[in-house]
Amino acid sequence: MKLCRFGNNQLGLVEGTQIRDVSAALDVLPSHRYPLPGHDPLIAHLGELMARIDAIKEQAPTVPLAGAQLLSPVANPGKIIAAPVNYVKHLQEVLDDPNLHHEMRINHIQRAGLFLKAPSSLVGADAGIALRKLDRRNDHEVELAVVIGKQGNNIRREDALDYVAGYCIGLDITIRGPEERSLRKSPDSYTVLGPWLVTADELPDASSLDLELSVNGETRQQANTSDLILGVAELIEFASSFYTLHPGDVIITGTPEGVGPLVPGDVMKASIEGIGSMQVNVRAA
Amino acid sequence: MKLCRFGNNQLGLVEGTQIRDVSAALDVLPSHRYPLPGHDPLIAHLGELMARIDAIKEQAPTVPLAGAQLLSPVANPGKIIAAPVNYVKHLQEVLDDPNLHHEMRINHIQRAGLFLKAPSSLVGADAGIALRKLDRRNDHEVELAVVIGKQGNNIRREDALDYVAGYCIGLDITIRGPEERSLRKSPDSYTVLGPWLVTADELPDASSLDLELSVNGETRQQANTSDLILGVAELIEFASSFYTLHPGDVIITGTPEGVGPLVPGDVMKASIEGIGSMQVNVRAA
Repeated sequence: MKLCRFGNNQLGLVEGTQIRDVSAALDVLPSHRYPLPGHDPLIAHLGELMARIDAIKEQAPTVPLAGAQLLSPVANPGKIIAAPVNYVKHLQEVLDDPNLHHEMRINHIQRAGLFLKAPSSLVGADAGIALRKLDRRNDHEVELAVVIGKQGNNIRREDALDYVAGYCIGLDITIRGPEERSLRKSPDSYTVLGPWLVTADELPDASSLDLELSVNGETRQQANTSDLILGVAELIEFASSFYTLHPGDVIITGTPEGVGPLVPGDVMKASIEGIGSMQVNVRAA
Repeated sequence: MKLCRFGNNQLGLVEGTQIRDVSAALDVLPSHRYPLPGHDPLIAHLGELMARIDAIKEQAPTVPLAGAQLLSPVANPGKIIAAPVNYVKHLQEVLDDPNLHHEMRINHIQRAGLFLKAPSSLVGADAGIALRKLDRRNDHEVELAVVIGKQGNNIRREDALDYVAGYCIGLDITIRGPEERSLRKSPDSYTVLGPWLVTADELPDASSLDLELSVNGETRQQANTSDLILGVAELIEFASSFYTLHPGDVIITGTPEGVGPLVPGDVMKASIEGIGSMQVNVRAA
């Protein structure tokens, strides 16, 4: 299924150029009193929700996809985890010596580790990006985003894909500078997830997907997830060796070569094969 | 007020060696359906909650503080923000040249920036710390923790204390190594908040509090918050220049000199003047 959130927290099933408004299926989700759960309730109940959607979709009203305001398909991620240098050619962009052997490349991301982005930085495609610190360079980074479907700890790579609920396009917007990545990449709107969640049953293999990002019609980043240094399963193994993953945690897998600056007024288009594409507008905060 | 969470998500008012069980006051908090709020509901409704506690406390049953299992006083922080090098003598510990002038010291933390810790790393005093990666050094860091009380963005330092709900003791447990701080400091249980929240009306000035941490009875860290390079107001100004702060966001303000290793079996005692003290046990994960 391609599941979107849109408008006034509505739930949609994307079918071509239409959205089935299946918000009634949200009734399967529990209500919560304090303290709130540390996971995303929709993702934690995804199986039940999908069954309910199947049962009601034929009767659900449709709206045109074109006019819908798309929200982040994950509303309540506990953690947004990101990989800093995880494409061979992007690594070559940033390293002095391009002739490192494979072992050294893997060591590099394993030494750099993963970083966190603030959940408050998360928006959907139609919210757009509000740039801060305009005296500094703000860069675009397009990435395959993985949504964790169930709780796990010390997950082995051979089991890791069982923990994936689905995939989205992720944008990891970045202020360049000396500070910790978890600060420079966490302003409000600096994490975009969209256009929707493609559930793992519909995209069982994310290991060779074309991805692309253009700015104002000009292609800036173009790569394939087969060039990832640590793939989806390896990232889940690595992350869960440090902390427990929970339903709705998001791992954005790293950006390929071609990162570049954004300025207010820019229009980005990001696409990943098997997921879809989204337009994201850039403004000043 | 000194407000604790204990036992089975009960709410307590700490009075000397007793806790008044004021869980009935939690009825003022709303229930939530998906999507959940991006803030901590208790902190967002703290004023209303405190009024309700005042109304019911005389009739509330008491339990001994000594036997209570203390939980994190903030259950649902959206962000746990931390300052990496924010005490003069700790900075001197880690810098090659101890003769930097004041301006350079301020530049140092402003260049390093703030980092994030995973909300899933958060526990209360009685959960204890479960150490991972035992082949590496795991260190203790004791810090003054500030709980944000209301939403704010680009907050000026002269207004910043209006945004403080209260204070706790924070422990920032750290695996030493080359990776991003947001990874090495985010394993489950590596952030301890406790023993309770002291509301800002009871602690209007946190700028000169003694803090101390001992391990197995031996004092390891001993300092005063007057030695902070960026104080509470300046940290709120700095953080909110990057992102919006929400009720329940936590800022741990940095650790003083004397950081050192922990091993399973260690018993820590952490104290901050005007807040209290807590014992935290260390085990292997």
